[in-house]
Amino acid sequence: KVKQELVSWHPSDIAEFLGSLEEEEASTDALILFLMLPPELKGDVFSEFDTELQRQILERITSDQVKEILSELSHDDRIELLENLPGNLTRRVLNLLSPDDRSITLELLGYPEDSVGRLMTPDYVSLKPHWTIEKALDHIRRYGKDAEIINMLYVIDEEGHLMDDILLRKVILAPPDATVESIMDWHYVAINAYADQEEAVRLIRKYDLNALPVVDDDNILLGIVTVDDIIDVLDEETTEDVHKESAVVPLETSYSQASPFLLYTKRVVWLFFLGISGFLSSGVISRFQGVLSSFISLSLFIPMLMGTGGNTSSQAATLVIRALAVGELTPRRWFLVVRKELLVGLLLGGSLGLVLATIGYLWTGDTGIALTVGLSIVGIVLWANLIGSTLPLLCTWVGIDPALISSPLLSTILDVTGLLIYFTVTTLVLL
Amino acid sequence: KVKQELVSWHPSDIAEFLGSLEEEEASTDALILFLMLPPELKGDVFSEFDTELQRQILERITSDQVKEILSELSHDDRIELLENLPGNLTRRVLNLLSPDDRSITLELLGYPEDSVGRLMTPDYVSLKPHWTIEKALDHIRRYGKDAEIINMLYVIDEEGHLMDDILLRKVILAPPDATVESIMDWHYVAINAYADQEEAVRLIRKYDLNALPVVDDDNILLGIVTVDDIIDVLDEETTEDVHKESAVVPLETSYSQASPFLLYTKRVVWLFFLGISGFLSSGVISRFQGVLSSFISLSLFIPMLMGTGGNTSSQAATLVIRALAVGELTPRRWFLVVRKELLVGLLLGGSLGLVLATIGYLWTGDTGIALTVGLSIVGIVLWANLIGSTLPLLCTWVGIDPALISSPLLSTILDVTGLLIYFTVTTLVLL
Ligand SMILES: [Mg+2]
Ligand SMILES: [Mg+2]
Ligand SMILES: [Mg+2]
Ligand SMILES: [Mg+2]
Ligand SMILES: [Mg+2]
Ligand SMILES: [Mg+2]
Ligand SMILES: [Mg+2]
Ligand SMILES: [Mg+2]
Ligand SMILES: [Mg+2]
Ligand SMILES: [Mg+2]
Ligand SMILES: [Mg+2]
Ligand SMILES: [Mg+2]
Ligand SMILES: [Mg+2]
Repeated sequence: KVKQELVSWHPSDIAEFLGSLEEEEASTDALILFLMLPPELKGDVFSEFDTELQRQILERITSDQVKEILSELSHDDRIELLENLPGNLTRRVLNLLSPDDRSITLELLGYPEDSVGRLMTPDYVSLKPHWTIEKALDHIRRYGKDAEIINMLYVIDEEGHLMDDILLRKVILAPPDATVESIMDWHYVAINAYADQEEAVRLIRKYDLNALPVVDDDNILLGIVTVDDIIDVLDEETTEDVHKESAVVPLETSYSQASPFLLYTKRVVWLFFLGISGFLSSGVISRFQGVLSSFISLSLFIPMLMGTGGNTSSQAATLVIRALAVGELTPRRWFLVVRKELLVGLLLGGSLGLVLATIGYLWTGDTGIALTVGLSIVGIVLWANLIGSTLPLLCTWVGIDPALISSPLLSTILDVTGLLIYFTVTTLVLL
Repeated sequence: KVKQELVSWHPSDIAEFLGSLEEEEASTDALILFLMLPPELKGDVFSEFDTELQRQILERITSDQVKEILSELSHDDRIELLENLPGNLTRRVLNLLSPDDRSITLELLGYPEDSVGRLMTPDYVSLKPHWTIEKALDHIRRYGKDAEIINMLYVIDEEGHLMDDILLRKVILAPPDATVESIMDWHYVAINAYADQEEAVRLIRKYDLNALPVVDDDNILLGIVTVDDIIDVLDEETTEDVHKESAVVPLETSYSQASPFLLYTKRVVWLFFLGISGFLSSGVISRFQGVLSSFISLSLFIPMLMGTGGNTSSQAATLVIRALAVGELTPRRWFLVVRKELLVGLLLGGSLGLVLATIGYLWTGDTGIALTVGLSIVGIVLWANLIGSTLPLLCTWVGIDPALISSPLLSTILDVTGLLIYFTVTTLVLL
């Protein structure tokens, strides 16, 4: 009964259900239920499992069962699986593929990681320009079954060069005796198989496509990348950026699947580096110990000043890094950013300086201290805002990922430089 | 000549080109070129402009020209335009719509902001179950022209209730005299028009759809949401989250379009709040002034300890917030997170404590101080890791957006609590 119920569900829902069984330690039940699914569902459900569950299943079933699942996977899902399996399992899986599937798989695996080649599937429908619409429709009926989406068709010449993309809608609406050529517009967007997958995201985002044709250097059509895989790439890339921005080395796996030790290794290096850099601030403080002991209440403002510098710079950096990530800002326009952030820094520094200096006056009753604090805030906020907004631009400009300018890194930089500004202002105002 | 060249481009590229003219202060040229485009291109190009440029154009052209552009916009693009225009322009635009378009537009505008209703377009093709495939294809040929995508068709009954979604491919592959009903599988994924747009993102991500049908409370089909708009929503929502995580109130506009004053207002409140909270740390320090003056070198470690607490907590928070955002983690599994992060915290605290305490010993030559620093680091890192990972879960649990647990907020919390831990350990070890 459970089986009958399951079979009527969407593969994603079946995968979610079996995955939850697995989590509640009922993994034998999950495996049995999975193996009872009809073959055509198995592939779809399997590709929705997370990597860990896929690995466990492959290790626990017979070679024939592995073969059956593999034959039902689409090419791009098979590549994703192989990318995530440990080496010994990869070899086992490759050996169990049919000769045809193996050769396609090995070819796709030949593309660099994070390249478009790894994302593509050769399941598309192509037309020849001299065909009639009737012949084209016949061809679509025959070969459209395995194609991932046939919303878009691709026109290629005899050598396989991509000539055009045509919406299936246009083919259906055309008179049956017209030629394919007559409905071509000779315009298409395509991407090289060696291009970075982020470029594919950019193109799909910009041109609102459901699929992107992939070509080699000679413009020979190799396959397509579909929008559902692009959404996965988009999620992955955002996760990477977000992790970097908090000084975590990208996990390359999901948080739930990451072991505590993996999490440790991805976090410890930055923490060490920033922790040791923290001694620089202490160095600055002890260097100015003399000033601090003459004006005891100066030290009351140190935590607030250090915090404000870090907070301001991480706000500015986030705004710029995100604008760069969605392509809304290019480093070429750095001048506009600097102009804008100088103004914002003055507004922020001015108002924070005024209010916090007033608080400082009420607290210490010393106008000199209040003035020092106020001016320091203006200086620190301006500086923090400038550093936070320009460092990411500078990184992009020299070819480093701007997401590396993390909030923890900025806050450490601002701790040291903020103190230097504070003591410089102190020296100027009070001495 | 420029015009002929332009007309052969993709609308996104034309919009980008005209936008760049605009930026280089050649806005008159941009407007003239835009008005010379053929009507069917105008709508597509216009909807690719950024809000600011759209507003400027609408203010500078005649009512007839506005009418022409409006009639070429798809319903969802028109809603997006109206959402972003100032009130007086909204009214002008609404008055210039044809009665049909106006009634659809007003209906769509009736849905709450950020609801699925605002994203949908009524341009879909629906079939009746009793039709033959031949009749269905005829219908598709007739009404498919305006449909945003006809990759997916929707079967509705006489009252308009959604009964199924069918891939166009399946219709084409079916025998012409079969009925639509015979190829239905009675399964579909749909969403309510009042649902939050993030729910639409979740469904499209999960079920790998190119379009999502939108229904009312009675399951009447109202429209569809297409994947290209979902990608835009995904980008917007990520931007919102990323901004929140750096203590910036979401801009609701792009960084480039935001005025310095707008940026100021979105940032100043958090900076004030956190700056004033910074005095809490000073309070803690002055409360323990006595201990500090007995062991002068204790103060050397304060910046490093405060920094490490903030850094650790923002790493942990980011990992958890992102896992929650992509739906990989649910608050129901808080126990696993706590267990994992306790272990990670011990590993991080242990290794950082060991190394930094050794540095402390080499620096001060005092084993008591080194022990105090080492133990404090273990305590602070464990605490930071726990707070950073559980606060976002707690937020989700009580219905607050976990992205509010920003790095600046955490670093301020950890400044105060980290100092308390330090002085407690000091009291226990040294006194
Ligand atoms: Mg896939
Ligand atoms: Mg990557
Ligand atoms: Mg074309
Ligand atoms: Mg788009
Ligand atoms: Mg695919
Ligand atoms: Mg990246
Ligand atoms: Mg749109
Ligand atoms: Mg929103
Ligand atoms: Mg269906
Ligand atoms: Mg997906
Ligand atoms: Mg749309
Ligand atoms: Mg949100
Ligand atoms: Mg700090």
